Formats: sequence, C-alpha cells, structure tokens
Amino acid sequence: MSKTKKICAVIMAGGKGERFWPKSRSSCPKQFLSLTSDGETMIQKTVRRLSPLVKPEDVFIVTNAAYTELVLDQLPDIPRENILAEPCARNTAPCIAFAASVIKRRDEDAIMLVLPSDHLIGYEDIYISTLKKAIKAADSGNNLITIGITPTYPETGYGYINFGAESGDVYEVERFVEKPDLKTAKSYLSSGKYLWNSGMFVWRVSTILAEMERFMPDIYAGAERIGQAWNTPEFTDVLVKEFYAFRSESVDFGIMEKADSIFTIPGSFGWDDVGSWLAVERINETDIDGNYLSGDVISIGSKHTTVCGRDKLIAAVGLEDIIIVDTDDALMVCSKKNTQDVKKVIAELRERRREELI
Amino acid sequence: MSKTKKICAVIMAGGKGERFWPKSRSSCPKQFLSLTSDGETMIQKTVRRLSPLVKPEDVFIVTNAAYTELVLDQLPDIPRENILAEPCARNTAPCIAFAASVIKRRDEDAIMLVLPSDHLIGYEDIYISTLKKAIKAADSGNNLITIGITPTYPETGYGYINFGAESGDVYEVERFVEKPDLKTAKSYLSSGKYLWNSGMFVWRVSTILAEMERFMPDIYAGAERIGQAWNTPEFTDVLVKEFYAFRSESVDFGIMEKADSIFTIPGSFGWDDVGSWLAVERINETDIDGNYLSGDVISIGSKHTTVCGRDKLIAAVGLEDIIIVDTDDALMVCSKKNTQDVKKVIAELRERRREELI
Repeated sequence: MSKTKKICAVIMAGGKGERFWPKSRSSCPKQFLSLTSDGETMIQKTVRRLSPLVKPEDVFIVTNAAYTELVLDQLPDIPRENILAEPCARNTAPCIAFAASVIKRRDEDAIMLVLPSDHLIGYEDIYISTLKKAIKAADSGNNLITIGITPTYPETGYGYINFGAESGDVYEVERFVEKPDLKTAKSYLSSGKYLWNSGMFVWRVSTILAEMERFMPDIYAGAERIGQAWNTPEFTDVLVKEFYAFRSESVDFGIMEKADSIFTIPGSFGWDDVGSWLAVERINETDIDGNYLSGDVISIGSKHTTVCGRDKLIAAVGLEDIIIVDTDDALMVCSKKNTQDVKKVIAELRERRREELI
Repeated sequence: MSKTKKICAVIMAGGKGERFWPKSRSSCPKQFLSLTSDGETMIQKTVRRLSPLVKPEDVFIVTNAAYTELVLDQLPDIPRENILAEPCARNTAPCIAFAASVIKRRDEDAIMLVLPSDHLIGYEDIYISTLKKAIKAADSGNNLITIGITPTYPETGYGYINFGAESGDVYEVERFVEKPDLKTAKSYLSSGKYLWNSGMFVWRVSTILAEMERFMPDIYAGAERIGQAWNTPEFTDVLVKEFYAFRSESVDFGIMEKADSIFTIPGSFGWDDVGSWLAVERINETDIDGNYLSGDVISIGSKHTTVCGRDKLIAAVGLEDIIIVDTDDALMVCSKKNTQDVKKVIAELRERRREELI
C-alpha cells in the first residue's frame, strides 16, 4: 500500500430512520440524532471516529438534498462541496456511483471507504486497525472488500457473508445470504464461516467504477455524466435529471453478489446498527434495575424500561419492558416486543394526513 | 315525613385525591377533575344529581379554604356562604359537626344528607329514590341512616356494613367492619348480610348533634362555638382557632360504631368510588380492544390500556394493561397492577422538593 495514496470516506446519510420515531422525523432522521448520553449525533460519531484515518476534506457525505444544512450544522469541518446531495433516494448503488464519480475527478487513485452514518462502534481503535487492513487489501489489487462483523448471537435481522479461504488479512467471500430464520442463523454461527454483513466497503475508486461499468452500465453511465458536470454550472440540472432516471439498486445485489475478487475482513469492534429503540439500553449505561432513564424521570419499581424524556417530569410506575419517548409534539409508549410497529404509527399518521408529525 | 321539612346536602370536598396524580394536584384534587368524557367534574356531578331533591341554596360544600374559589368557579349556583372552608383537615367528624352546627342556625329541623364529592353514580333515579327512603327513615325518629351499597364482587378495599333485621325500608346495622381480606370478603358476599360502606349518611341535624354531644363532646363543643360565631365578625378567628384544636376523627369511628339506632339502606345505583386510575376504563366507554383512549391517541395493537391525553399526539404501541396520563408538566406511565404506587411518586417528588409538581 502506497503511503501517499489518498483515502476518502463516503458516509451514506440518506436514511429515513423511521424506527426512531417520534424522535426521528422526516426533517431529522436517525443519523442526525444523539441516542447516547454524550450528546454526540450518530453522524458526528461516524466522522469523528474516522479522524485518525481520513481528513475532513476527504470525507464525503451523501445525503438527501433536504439534509444539507443539517450536515453543515453538525459537521462544520466538512467542506460544503463534499456534501453530495441526492435529489431523490435510489438505494446504495447510485449513491456510491455518484460519490465515486466525484472522487475520481479529485484523485483517480484514491481509496474509497463506504460507511453507514448511523451505526455505533464500541472499540474505535480496533475499528481503525480493521479499516487499515481492509485498505491494504483493497490497494493490493482490484479487490472489493466488505467489512464483516463476527456474530455474537444468531441475529435474524441481518444478512450474512459466507467466507472461504484466508488470503493475508482477508478472506475470500463465497456468497452473501439474506436474513436467515433462527435455525439457519444458529447453523451459521456454529459453522464458524459466516459474518454479519455490515454494509461497510473498501475499494479503489477505479475498481468500483470498473465493476459498475461491467455489472450496471446504466448507473455507471449516469454517474459518469454527473461526474463530468461536477464543478460546472450545469451540475445541478444534470444531477437531478440523472438521479431521477436511476433505478433503485443496492450495491450488495448489483455488485457484491456478482463480482469476482470479493473479500471480507472480520471485524470485532463492538458494532451496533442501532436498529430500533431496543438498542438504546444496549448502547447506554442502565441502572441496577436494567432501566435507561434519560431526562427528568422518576421510576417506581420499573424494570428494563427505556425512558427518553426531556424537561418534563416522567413517572414510570411498575413498568417492565416498556419504551417511552417524549418529544414536544408526540409521545410514544411502546412495548419492547413491538418496536418494529413504530412504522405502523407513521403509516397511520400518513393515513390521517398528519404529516407535521412524521 | 313532613313534606315541608328542609333537606340540606353537605358535600364533603376536602380530599386530596393523590391517587389521580398527575391530573390531580394539591391545587386541584380529584373532586374538581373531570374523569369522564362529558367534561363534568366529579363535584359538579355530585351537586347536579341531587337537584331533584335539594335546591342549590341548601347545598353546603365543606372543603379546604384553598379550594373556595375552585368551588365557586365550578358551582356558580351555590351561594358563597354555603361554602364551609376548613382551615385544616381533621377527618369527617369535625367536618360534619361544623356543617351541622351551621345548618342548625338556619333550620334546626332540617334533614341533613352527608355525601362524598368524588364518587360516581350510574343510575341517578334509583339513587334519588334511595335517598328519599333514607330521608323518610331518618325523619321517623332519632335515627342515623347510612347508605350501604349492595356488593357486586368481593372488594377488599372497602369497609363493610353488617346488617340485621328489616325495619320498613331500612335494616338495623349490627356492626361496621374494616377492609377484609379476600377470603373474608367472599364470606361476606355469600352471607347476604353485608353491604359496602359508602360514606353517605342521612339524619336530622338535631339527631347527629345530639349523638356528637354524647360521643364526642369536645368536637361537639368546638363546633357549637363555630356555629355561634356564624355570621359575626369573629367567625373566621373562631373557626381557625377551633379547627386547629380539633382532633382528627372519622364519623364512622366516632359515632357510627358507637351510637344506637343505626340503620342502613341497601343502594344499587351503579356506585363507583373512582378510587384509582383503574376506575377510568370502568366509568367510561372502551373500544373493542378494551382501551379507553382520550385525547389525540393512536393505538397500534394495544389492549386494556387507558390513555388520558390532551392535544399532543400519543402513540400507544403493543401495550397491555398500561395507564398513560399526560399533563402539561408531568407524564405518568403506570402498570395497572401498580396504580396504588402513584402515591410513591408523590412521596418521591416531596423528597426531591419538587412541590410544584404535587
């Protein structure tokens, strides 16, 4: 790995994060929220933890155009031109193609890290060390590296990576598999040959663009036209036109499941995708009764209960496995076994034309 | 019963109603709240349902001095001089003695109904008819009549009245018994000889004063001095001095358990003491899932849940047997099995010197 090669990080920050309603709203989704007691937002954490490896001027944030100001507010060190504003959501393949075509104009030899904006990492030194190994492997050839997470339990909500032969610090990827049922997930764990698919990727800009040209020439061509218009007066027009024309496609399905030279590196750095309100007690300290109580809260005999309050007093009396989230204009009280139903609340609000609460 | 005899109602409205926190506060206890969807407060209901029997000028409200304005606001037809403002709480015996000594100055032949201010009655016609029978029995001699409630289940939270021989519309009272355990309560029900003690009484003013003079001469004497000062410039001074000097005593213990000529009349008029937040689903209509949802509420799969909200949206997701009460400055989420612990919240608030929330 050449010491002088530029490393760029592409932070994917276009998600809606509906599962964190009512704290997340369409105007401020999960990646822009702080879900930990330190007050740092998810995207701020994501950028900060990369700082040993990537300079702010080499961090690119791909997000919906509506969130540009939010990104500038929360990440004042990132240059405005590094905020890649998608006119509409088209999943990860167009997002990454857009970023790659822009980065290519800056430095066609750059190494590109592609990272979600709304995950948590407990062990940041190990994370950086893992990324360094991935960078080295990505730079040693036309390789696509995906960071796998060594599973700690048979989660059925994630996709898995089946890996094969070792090759230096990385392993050849045999195949990607969709979310398994519990029995299958258990068999994956006991096989010792499966990792969680974290959605973090490392590759040369030139490599991913070549793979895109091969496996999704339409998206590649649109992204190239966007890249050609970069820094010209036509840029916005071209961006809007091309983006709306993109089909929705994930990089996993569009590239990773088809390309050769896919490798994975097992990561064990306390990764948490913070997938629902259930995560809050996992990623924060809890009291002796297993409660996470934030805000002005009195618990009388409550257990394993999460309260995300504010200034207003919240009394939690005799509760067990309940999640309470209070905001200025909406309060949610949810059983822990029903956190996925938060999306149904949003659907119901949409039905009732209560967009101001979504 | 003389048709011309004056009937006065004494509404006892000095309670603190802490079990309805956070809606009830020391500045506005339960009797001044509406807990039904019609918006009428408990004390408004109490006075309105008496209207076929008692004129507003014959209704007396005994309450803490702090609530005088609240009473005037909620009951504009009651003359200000009928609001008997206790300087401090001394339980029901001094309260009733105070009222009796004032009423005696208006009409010493009056019949006096003593009624709680914070109970609900489902069948108001039957209630009035029961009171009429009680009035008749009270006026037929120096009798103390207590309204019993025919039990509908073995409640362990009420005192019971053991009755004996029938005498016209009423029954002789054998004894009053304290809150029983479940086994005892069941035996009371199967005996067919026990009624719930509702705390409603009917007697001549002259009769109760005579019994007080006999069984609690100190309280009687203090109340007489208050009555003598009624409508004089010294009244407030005398009232304050005498009230603070009163010992706390209940009329049940001080008179009813000791006097002769105690009778009860069984009432079956849909009585509910509205003793805790649990009552709200009982006294209101519920939806098909057994929920009582008031305010701007979305339920996603919740059952047997009570939500008392306001303008702010409340989403109740996957809850079962949960009570949510939202107010401007405090929110309570409580398991139905822990409604009695609401008092512990108040104790904790007192401990933390958060009097503004009590």
